[in-house]
Amino acid sequence: MSPPLTNLLSDLPEKSDEELFTTLFQNPNCRIERIVSFGQSSPEDFWYDQEWDEWVLLLQGYAELDLAGQVRQLTPGEHVLIPAGLRHRVIHTAKDQPTVWLAIHFNEPTKS
Amino acid sequence: MSPPLTNLLSDLPEKSDEELFTTLFQNPNCRIERIVSFGQSSPEDFWYDQEWDEWVLLLQGYAELDLAGQVRQLTPGEHVLIPAGLRHRVIHTAKDQPTVWLAIHFNEPTKS
Repeated sequence: MSPPLTNLLSDLPEKSDEELFTTLFQNPNCRIERIVSFGQSSPEDFWYDQEWDEWVLLLQGYAELDLAGQVRQLTPGEHVLIPAGLRHRVIHTAKDQPTVWLAIHFNEPTKS
Repeated sequence: MSPPLTNLLSDLPEKSDEELFTTLFQNPNCRIERIVSFGQSSPEDFWYDQEWDEWVLLLQGYAELDLAGQVRQLTPGEHVLIPAGLRHRVIHTAKDQPTVWLAIHFNEPTKS
């Protein structure tokens, strides 16, 4: 077990080939996750299409989201609700610093 | 209806005699709230004692929490789970800038 992550913005690696995903809290209805991106984006023509609502808040960095064709630019403090079934993808994230997201998943199906 | 609050950190009043509470999202199991404090603290000898779990994240400013006798100093990015029944109070919040919290309430009883 890694030690609990008490500060979401500290001790970030400068670079990583993969995004980091850390669950901070979970109960049967709700999961709170930190995501750290290092310039990653969704693969070309890939769309997330989830069966559950997700709320995301950008904490640090910069990101551009495509929400079913509507582009949203996110700076720290911006948040967006991604309703179940809304196709979305990450167009890009900051190249010069880690981008830190808080994601809250509502009634996400249990992974089997 | 006020316009939706899209950035949690922008357009903050410099001062207010009262804390600001804004619900950002709500479903039957979960409520996401922004709280802005302007140097406020809990009244002397007052303790919050809630029947539901609450998760808080400090986004900006500074705060000191008393969690059933254990003091936690919160800087931006720090988060803490306050389990149901854990008595807690805010010892103080920054006097020189607004303190912005994200609070997530789990299975909070419906207000009647």
